[in-house]
Parts: sequence; C-alpha cells; structure tokens
Amino acid sequence: MAMSESRHESIGRALVESDREAWLMWRTESVVMATGYLPCWGLSFCLYPVKNSPILYIPALEPRDQLPSKGFVVREYPWGVLNSADPWGMLFSMIEKDLENLGISTEKVACLRDNSQTSPNTFSGESPAIDTRFLEKIFSTFNPGNEKTDTALKKLFTIKKENEIENIRLANKVAGTGLQVFYEKARPGLSEAQLSGMVEAAIQEEMGKKGVFYSRAWAMVQSGINTIDSGRFSRTTGRIMEEGEPVLIELATCVNGFWSDLTRVTATSELSPEKREIFTVVWEAQQLALKEVKPGKTTGDIDRAARDYIEARGYGKYFTHATGHHTGFRYHDHGPGIVPGGKEVLEPGMVITIEPGIYCPAKKMGCRIEDNVLVTEKGHETLSDFPKGLTMNR
Amino acid sequence: MAMSESRHESIGRALVESDREAWLMWRTESVVMATGYLPCWGLSFCLYPVKNSPILYIPALEPRDQLPSKGFVVREYPWGVLNSADPWGMLFSMIEKDLENLGISTEKVACLRDNSQTSPNTFSGESPAIDTRFLEKIFSTFNPGNEKTDTALKKLFTIKKENEIENIRLANKVAGTGLQVFYEKARPGLSEAQLSGMVEAAIQEEMGKKGVFYSRAWAMVQSGINTIDSGRFSRTTGRIMEEGEPVLIELATCVNGFWSDLTRVTATSELSPEKREIFTVVWEAQQLALKEVKPGKTTGDIDRAARDYIEARGYGKYFTHATGHHTGFRYHDHGPGIVPGGKEVLEPGMVITIEPGIYCPAKKMGCRIEDNVLVTEKGHETLSDFPKGLTMNR
Repeated sequence: MAMSESRHESIGRALVESDREAWLMWRTESVVMATGYLPCWGLSFCLYPVKNSPILYIPALEPRDQLPSKGFVVREYPWGVLNSADPWGMLFSMIEKDLENLGISTEKVACLRDNSQTSPNTFSGESPAIDTRFLEKIFSTFNPGNEKTDTALKKLFTIKKENEIENIRLANKVAGTGLQVFYEKARPGLSEAQLSGMVEAAIQEEMGKKGVFYSRAWAMVQSGINTIDSGRFSRTTGRIMEEGEPVLIELATCVNGFWSDLTRVTATSELSPEKREIFTVVWEAQQLALKEVKPGKTTGDIDRAARDYIEARGYGKYFTHATGHHTGFRYHDHGPGIVPGGKEVLEPGMVITIEPGIYCPAKKMGCRIEDNVLVTEKGHETLSDFPKGLTMNR
Repeated sequence: MAMSESRHESIGRALVESDREAWLMWRTESVVMATGYLPCWGLSFCLYPVKNSPILYIPALEPRDQLPSKGFVVREYPWGVLNSADPWGMLFSMIEKDLENLGISTEKVACLRDNSQTSPNTFSGESPAIDTRFLEKIFSTFNPGNEKTDTALKKLFTIKKENEIENIRLANKVAGTGLQVFYEKARPGLSEAQLSGMVEAAIQEEMGKKGVFYSRAWAMVQSGINTIDSGRFSRTTGRIMEEGEPVLIELATCVNGFWSDLTRVTATSELSPEKREIFTVVWEAQQLALKEVKPGKTTGDIDRAARDYIEARGYGKYFTHATGHHTGFRYHDHGPGIVPGGKEVLEPGMVITIEPGIYCPAKKMGCRIEDNVLVTEKGHETLSDFPKGLTMNR
C-alpha cells in the first residue's frame, strides 16, 4: 500500500497527519527526496504545500540544467551575487509572500529541526553556507513541531518509491565499478591510500555515462592489522599491503543524490585457514540475516539471525556493532537501526543494509560484508548484486 | 605581535576579552585550531579553559593514534557502543562535572552558535551525527553570547600560528602533486570526471608519506564552454575535452585538517589569441593584487588592484566574484572576504586566497588563477608555489 502511494501523495498525507499545510526544507536529502534534485551549493530551499505545486528557491549561482523539469515553481534568490545587499532577507520575504498567496499561515508550516547527519551537496566537502540567523528565524517563525510531527516526516524517508529504488539500484551499479577495481588491485606493495584513490577514480569516471550526472565515492580501505579497527571506524591510511592479508573496503557512493553503502573483503594472497574461517562465518551470518528480510519481520529479528549464528560459532564478542541501517537518501539514512531488540517492523519499500562483522585481534582479522536490500511485498531483493566472495571468482 | 602570541595565549586572551573562562567547541575546524587534532567521526568535543589543560572528549569509537600527545586531558564517552543507553547524557554529565572541578560556572562558558559552513571530518561525506537535542541543551545551558563574543572567537581563526602555517604549506605542497597530474593529463579525449579522479587519486596517494596522515581532495574540473560557468559554481561533469580548449581546476585539498584552495587553468592544446588574452589579463591582475598584500592594507585595496586592472582591460563585467577569502582551517575559512570596499586591515599571520577571474561567454572562456598567501611582517609570502602558467613550462 505504502509503495503504491506516490511520493507527492505520501508527503501530503504526512503533512495532513501532522496538522500542517506545507513543509519548508533545505537539507540535501530532504530536497532530493521531495524534488529529485541534488543541489550543487546546498543552498536550495523547497516549500512543499499539500495542495499546489512545490516551490524551489535556488541561489543565483546554482546550475540550472539539472533542475526538475516540471511540477515545480523555481525562484532565484540573490545569494553569491557580488555585493548583493541581503540575500537571506530577500529569500525570507519570498517565502513569506508565497505563503500569503497560498493562504497558508506560519503555524501550518512544518520544518525538521534536525542538526544531525546530513548528506553532502556536490560542491567540495564543506557544509553549505546557510546563514545561522536565517535558520534561527525559520525555526522561530514556522512550526518545527513536536516528536509526533518529526516522526511522521522522518518516516517518509524510510519508504522508497519505484523511481527512487531505480536510482539506488543505479548507485549500487556504479559502486560496482569501484569494487571491480578493488578486487583487481588489492595486491602486496600497494598502499591503502593508493587503492582507495583508484576505486574512487573509477567511480567518478562513471560521471557522464548513461543516466549519471553526478558520481562520487568515499572508499575507506583497511588492510592487515588495520582491519581489526574496521568495526570501530573506517579510515584509509598509507599502510602498504603485504602478502596473505585481508583487505576491507567500506564504500560510500553517491550517484545523482542517491546512496549505496557497501562493504567487501578480499585478500592480497591466500589467507590462513583461521582467517578464512572468519570470512566464512561472516558470509554465512549475512546469508541468514538476508533470509529474514521480509514484510512483518522486525529489525530485531534480522539482527538476531546474524548475531545468534556468530555467537554460536564463538565470535559473539567480536561482533560489536549493529547489523544494519536504512540507506538511500543518505549514506546512513533516517530511520531506526537494525539492532538487538529492534522493534521496527519491515515494510515494502524499505531499503536497509545487512552488514554483520567480526573483528578478532588475536587472528589479526576484521571482516564485514554489506549489501543494500529492498523489502518487497513477498520478501526482499538485493540491490547490490556485486559478488561478495573473498576473490572475484568465488 | 599577534603572531608571536601562542595559540594557547590567543585563545585565552579572546576568552578573557569576551568575559568567559572556557570555550566548549566541536566543529571540525574549531577542534583543529585549538588542539591540532583532526577528528575522524566529527564527534569530538573540546572544553578549553583559560587556565588549566583543555579536555578533549572523544567517542568510544574514535581512533586514538593521532590524538594530541601532550597538554590535553582525553576522556572517552560511550558513543557508538552497541546498546549504550544514553551517550549524550553521559557526555553532558562529564562536561558538567569537569566544569564543577574547574570552578567554572555555566554562564562563563562560551560556544559558537554557528550553523553555517564547516569543514568535514575524515569519515565519508556525511556530516557528524551530533544529536540535535544535545546541541540545543548546550546552547541553552552555556553562553553562546552576543556578536562581540562571536567576533572575538571567530577572529582567532584568521591569525595563523607558525606551526599552522607549516601545515598549510604542507597542504599546498601535497595539492601540487595533484596539479602536476592536472597539467600532464589535460588532453583531448579525456572527460572532466576522469581528469578529476586522477588528480584526487594523486593527492590521496600522498597519505602515509612524510608528515601526511590524512590527505583528501575535491578537484572540480571545468573544460571548454563549461569554464564560463566557473565563476558561478564549480562542478565536474562527464564532458569530453576537445582540442584548443581551456581547462580549469578548482582544487580543495585537506591535509591533516589544514586546507589549501587553488585554481589553475591550462589548455588541451594551443588556445586562440583571444582566449590567451583572457589568461594573460587574469594572470597580470593576480600579480597586481599579490603586490598589494602587506600589513596595513585593507581587503578593499587588494580587491581594487585586481578589479581596476581587469576593468581597464575591458573585462570588468566578467569578473563577477570576490578577489579572495581567508583559508587554512577551512576551505573557506572564517573571516571577511576580499571584496570591493572591504574594510578589514591585513595583519601578519593572515592566510588569504587571491583569485581574480574572467568568465567571458562570447570568447567561450572562463579563467581564474588562485594562490594562498601569507601576510608577513614585511609583506607577503605565497604558500602555494606551484607554477601557474597556461602550460607547465611557462
């Protein structure tokens, strides 16, 4: 049912349930979710009314060739124009005037008062230069609301629509070009940083190819003894890879605003049996968790499937993190984690990661295998179909 | 005078001037400035008292091998630990207890209430998952203060210290390895995205070499007709480069938490005389602006030197942006821009970009040349010494 609702209908329903008539948004993942548009400067605002067309306010310097082609009113505000007197004041007046024309009062305008994780815009790694006082004015003028409103709006991110799923599938396909390079190049003598750079370049090269106007990856490569840290943090270093070592890649890929989050483990050459065993246990635990993914199951069920198995195999205390999380509009998307005792019930349209891991200092091996999985009406579909063996042939 | 003050002394002085006894900070560039430490997760908080040692609160999952080796107290809070009950509540209690032990009351604790631009942490492109309610509690408990406090604290970022300047010099040196690749590989048949990927990989490869534990770049490449957009936005596309075209790179590089911001322009093969003229005018305008950089000059003086010349050569209306900005702790650092009529007076220790440009649709050519310049006691020193000709030989 939820999947058959259009994105426009689901936003409208969430706003009505929250007793609001419009939503003012600006964070990258919100704009992507509501409009399909990935901002360049990260300074695009969208006023999304329940009735009438959404209005997209873009800074004067924004590129215009990727803007949504129809269904949106686009207005420009004078940010970035040399000596423009007061771009934020101008933008605020534009929003006020539009609300007046739409007959919507300020207390009927929702906004998410959320300063935590955001996905990046396309321009460098710096967060957008949204004026602090402007945001404070927004929060005090409009109606950030309570926990109930927050929950209703954030819930929207967790159910993906057909075209969004296609975009996440594309992100996973593009990520695969990076994984191909990872398996081919992970050899003794290369540094983690060199391997990471090659993977990221391969993914960036996809830009301009069919349907891909933006493609960027963060490839975090950990090798040998560094893999035992990979359950605590992901970080590429200059370490040179040696013979007989595991190499883990944590790969965040953004294509056109949609995200893939994958982990693979390979070896620089034949691993010892005790290291291979860890790989096998993680691989089997992931299969067991995947089998559980279907509507009606809870996140706790999924986590338990992986965790029980890893515990039974004697590695329980080395599986130190959650089994997964939502992904798609962000690398780590809105929504509850796939954690022990998790109560969220899976629904069709959810896209989650399944990523059990074992990090065993005594065996000098950390291992995690991660895929992105769509919950379907009847079960699930893995959106990341890249092989996940220890080598490409397996 | 300002340069001879240590970083510790200057923070103390700014706090005393602001009638505060400590500063609670968490944004990446603040932590780097005050402690020299570049956070991995972006969840490290620092309580910096005027007297006594600063306290660094790191999440349990943070790597520990790059933490400041002395002069700091390091405490761990249980963020990221599976099923940890309330990491933010724990962190808040730790801060409260430390303040009590130091005898500092909450209204004497400064914090910067600034949601605008931040430099990224090292973990992917996603902003840190700092709990919104935790930040709100910080802002309501402590003393974000007024415009005067804000100004005093932000001013700290604009005067760099000797070791910080060395780090910015290193970032520029590392960026040079990417520019080398840019000049060598910008040839017909390659896409902007391929070239960008190669430059970024070259810079990432420096990781692990002398003094470089972290190195990442954002290389935004615009070629041919796309260069005329480069005064409005920086964006790599899949466009294939052709003969006789300009190629512009806007290159943001972060090394160990310190930033370089450079722009160079080259050609895929010999440019037409009218395109070469644009390059020459920009090159000469940059020289004129650089000559003005010395203590006592205003940002307006610097801007005028470049702008007057470009106007005199008939390209005034195509120079649509500021002449520069502060850089170092961020790609675009705190501090006023180098803009027409700018009143900020240059002081020793400031590091600014000088980046005039001309974007001329009729001649299908955009051009900008950008360096990072330190204001010294007697004049200035260019920290980015990579050649800036149209080819590497010039």
